[in-house]
Amino acid sequence: QYSTGVRKVTLIPGHGIGPEITVAVQKIFEAAKVPIEWDEVDVTAVRGPDGKFGIPQKAIDSVNANKIGLKGPLMTPVGKGYRSLNLALRKEFDLYANVRPCKSLDGIKTLYDNVDVVTIRENTEGEYSGIEHEIVDGVVQSIKLITEEASKRVAEFAFQFAQDNKRKKVTAVHKANIMRMSDGLFLRCCRDLATKYPGVTFEERYLDTVCLNMVQDPSKFDVLVMPNLYGDIMSDMCSGLVGGLGLTPSGNIGKNGALFESVHGTAPSIAGQDKANPTALLLSGVMMLRHLRMYDFADRIEGACFAVLKEGRVLTEDLGGKSSCTDYTNEIIRNMN
Amino acid sequence: QYSTGVRKVTLIPGHGIGPEITVAVQKIFEAAKVPIEWDEVDVTAVRGPDGKFGIPQKAIDSVNANKIGLKGPLMTPVGKGYRSLNLALRKEFDLYANVRPCKSLDGIKTLYDNVDVVTIRENTEGEYSGIEHEIVDGVVQSIKLITEEASKRVAEFAFQFAQDNKRKKVTAVHKANIMRMSDGLFLRCCRDLATKYPGVTFEERYLDTVCLNMVQDPSKFDVLVMPNLYGDIMSDMCSGLVGGLGLTPSGNIGKNGALFESVHGTAPSIAGQDKANPTALLLSGVMMLRHLRMYDFADRIEGACFAVLKEGRVLTEDLGGKSSCTDYTNEIIRNMN
Ligand SMILES: CC(C)[C@H](C(=O)O)[C@@H](O)C(=O)O
Ligand SMILES: CC(C)[C@H](C(=O)O)[C@@H](O)C(=O)O
Repeated sequence: QYSTGVRKVTLIPGHGIGPEITVAVQKIFEAAKVPIEWDEVDVTAVRGPDGKFGIPQKAIDSVNANKIGLKGPLMTPVGKGYRSLNLALRKEFDLYANVRPCKSLDGIKTLYDNVDVVTIRENTEGEYSGIEHEIVDGVVQSIKLITEEASKRVAEFAFQFAQDNKRKKVTAVHKANIMRMSDGLFLRCCRDLATKYPGVTFEERYLDTVCLNMVQDPSKFDVLVMPNLYGDIMSDMCSGLVGGLGLTPSGNIGKNGALFESVHGTAPSIAGQDKANPTALLLSGVMMLRHLRMYDFADRIEGACFAVLKEGRVLTEDLGGKSSCTDYTNEIIRNMN
Repeated sequence: QYSTGVRKVTLIPGHGIGPEITVAVQKIFEAAKVPIEWDEVDVTAVRGPDGKFGIPQKAIDSVNANKIGLKGPLMTPVGKGYRSLNLALRKEFDLYANVRPCKSLDGIKTLYDNVDVVTIRENTEGEYSGIEHEIVDGVVQSIKLITEEASKRVAEFAFQFAQDNKRKKVTAVHKANIMRMSDGLFLRCCRDLATKYPGVTFEERYLDTVCLNMVQDPSKFDVLVMPNLYGDIMSDMCSGLVGGLGLTPSGNIGKNGALFESVHGTAPSIAGQDKANPTALLLSGVMMLRHLRMYDFADRIEGACFAVLKEGRVLTEDLGGKSSCTDYTNEIIRNMN
């Protein structure tokens, strides 16, 4: 059903550099004639009936209707009563699998070659449960919540992802030597699912060991699946190996919707100056197109973007170039023809 | 009181390659005429009166008497009722600060130059509290416990360490955007202590950001202080940047004792073959000597070890060499003269 007709997609430009990188992506999608109609919504925190700040209802309705969205960076105001809107969105739509591929890019010089890993992060519970108490003065506990249900579905997602994308191996990352019951449960769910995917190799590794091996030899890894916080860390670390958050895409996938986002910040210091790098949001858009099975559009846009990065003539300042966001965008469009 | 007379030190050779690397360290210390008398004890799990496995009483008595020890890797049997003996030792003696320096070594080729960071890890609580429950079938919680007392003492340790070692900066690593109360408390304790050390720059950074920045540019960091699990990860990652756990030392420091240990495994596959690399244990011994204020002995042994690594002629197999543990040991001794 996906690949024909015009698909409506929620678009959340966000704050800071969000609007300008969003315009860049829209221009490139338009030039590629992607059959998408954008449903643009604002996600600035609003005070709800309970006095807490949250996502505006219009945005919620839009994602619920379209079941798919692309989003730029959101600013979360600092202070009591505010929760990260990024997290609120993941929670609101039960987007349980956070997918973050990191692949070395031709033309982007880092210390590493041939990185090609995908972090699959449980996105709804774990250390992000939000449950905390002060037991007595000066003694605080935070609760890490692991459920069989959430662990199984993200494990299944990881194996299915590996199979669909012809990946060879899934590594479950854990500290079940320390958190025997919680990480132990997560690990058992991964083991269970592994038996259903005999074509995918399964291994289990300690988080600390993976961190060490990853910086020494990333080619040891392929698809990684892990609880929430571990995925937060691991995906940033892997992003660092290939050039940073300005270049790496992400997707939050649920049963009833999916939201693709660039995970860099709002970069207020360069906002509005046509200096921002739209690559992470563009590649998140490419991930979204693949999710919509618009493979040809995805390949064409991604190919043009990679070609511009590889050529290295028209790059934004964060990549050591001198070009504006607009010039970089136009160069990608030129490369599509 | 430390630098004169013979000091008694508990020695825990441990399992696997533990005994042979311990002999290597003993030989080097003897050749350097370090005024130490080793009190060797075995730490193989024994079943206590409660039916649980734990540290033998003789080892506990020895550390309590000597207040200082050097230990090789311990094997923890797999199965119910076993806890990591490494952790049990840290807990038994309330060794609240885990210090893990990682410095690039001349002659050890990695992707990074000029790494020079020290991870200071809270060593008694946090995610390692051991408190877990199955609330209902398939729903587990693990408790991360953060106390003001433990946070303050490790923060104080970090700042004092920075000052004593003429280090410029302490970075508190946290996820207080997610675990507002627990990591928030830890962070506040660090901020409090920072005001007492005006000569040391203080900064606070998110754990994920530090992981990303560390793999891109480790020179951004100096001394890092953080809760237990974060330190577990970060120290392994940093160790990876400079060559791995075979080369990096560690110390567990408390009010009434200190235990220095190599944190690599027991490497059963090469045990007993005179192939093991004793460097991590040796450099842990060097850290111990500095703790005992035996600075000259420390410098001499460390200098000889670094010289052998730099020359690269006599190296163990893990470092790409062909020499035995014995030959490497003798080469270090030759370099001390
Ligand atoms: C912004 C922050 C709350 C978020 C997280 O911790 O998940 C971010 O680091 C990410 O990885 O998307
Ligand atoms: C052996 C294991 C329990 C331990 C830990 O998790 O602390 C190890 O990884 C370490 O860093 O010393």
